[in-house]
Amino acid sequence: MDKIATPAASFPTLGGRGQDRLAKRDAVLLAAVRMFNARGFHATSLDDVAASLGVTKPMIYHYLGTKDQVLFECMRNGLQQLREAADAAALQPGTGLDRLKLFLRSYAECMMADFGRCVVRTGNAALAPESLKQFRQLKAEVDRVLRHMIEAAAADGSARVADVKLTAFAFAGALNGTAIWHQAEGPLQPHEIAASLADILIGGISP
Amino acid sequence: MDKIATPAASFPTLGGRGQDRLAKRDAVLLAAVRMFNARGFHATSLDDVAASLGVTKPMIYHYLGTKDQVLFECMRNGLQQLREAADAAALQPGTGLDRLKLFLRSYAECMMADFGRCVVRTGNAALAPESLKQFRQLKAEVDRVLRHMIEAAAADGSARVADVKLTAFAFAGALNGTAIWHQAEGPLQPHEIAASLADILIGGISP
Repeated sequence: MDKIATPAASFPTLGGRGQDRLAKRDAVLLAAVRMFNARGFHATSLDDVAASLGVTKPMIYHYLGTKDQVLFECMRNGLQQLREAADAAALQPGTGLDRLKLFLRSYAECMMADFGRCVVRTGNAALAPESLKQFRQLKAEVDRVLRHMIEAAAADGSARVADVKLTAFAFAGALNGTAIWHQAEGPLQPHEIAASLADILIGGISP
Repeated sequence: MDKIATPAASFPTLGGRGQDRLAKRDAVLLAAVRMFNARGFHATSLDDVAASLGVTKPMIYHYLGTKDQVLFECMRNGLQQLREAADAAALQPGTGLDRLKLFLRSYAECMMADFGRCVVRTGNAALAPESLKQFRQLKAEVDRVLRHMIEAAAADGSARVADVKLTAFAFAGALNGTAIWHQAEGPLQPHEIAASLADILIGGISP
């Protein structure tokens, strides 16, 4: 069996409501996303996830629904983190390029964390049609935000951009790649990798 | 059913040997890779591939083996194309950066073609253990070649590179992304996209 850090200890006792329910749901999601990332989505069953938490599969259905719904929630969390990173970067001072660079760093860090990794590693082909539709809407929103930040950097003269759309795809691809190749036991910490990648990418559009 | 351009017309009549056998094998591979890319590997059966060619599943087993072996051959083709692109770029005149740029362009074009797309779209999690081992060796060889070209550009002073490994990962990620987002019916041709992406990435390490 793969070595996966499971959040079993954080799984609260049964029978709670409200906050407790949310904590249980989060514990299930975290256990699931780590298994999906380590073993692959198709190779992971909800029974495996339940077993790692010492609960039953019906309990997972109760908190999150089917395996597809669990995956969608994992992916939604990952995309939500990207949105929050963009919102935080947009509030920072400096030029458009400064803000874009901050966002690229945070984006890379999200992709090296559990939920961001899942967005890339599992891929949307695993989602059922209705979940896929929602996923695409959320993903399109992240793409839109990234393009908007690149446009803003071009508009205030801090970046030189020939094709906003292709630049956004290039940046997202370079950062999404970390979800595949980054290994927790590697010599560099995620924030160091994120800073270096942002430097390389920003270098490509600096005047 | 998805709209997939199948190479059925190129599937030769039964009973040949030698060249004919190779042509049949190639036709099966091309039909398979296009279905894997369009529908997803897990959602495609060898029965589907056989049906698209008007042949039987045992015939596919005969030419290529199991579904895992078909996938591995598709991925090996994709990686082989990258190796050939690197070899071709290495023979060109100019600086190390010029040669690297040529390779990045070809790399992107490979990723927008059938077999390169499959390497990224399907992902190695779908491979059986022995195939996965071989895939990783071939993939590591491509990574090595890319790093070597970046190092050569830094060594002759045509590029300014802080971290060869991270630069290689960033470039590969940006180019691999085309396998996901590029759509044949889009406004730009693969060679145009490839040229723009290479410009953006090379810009990041130009002195």
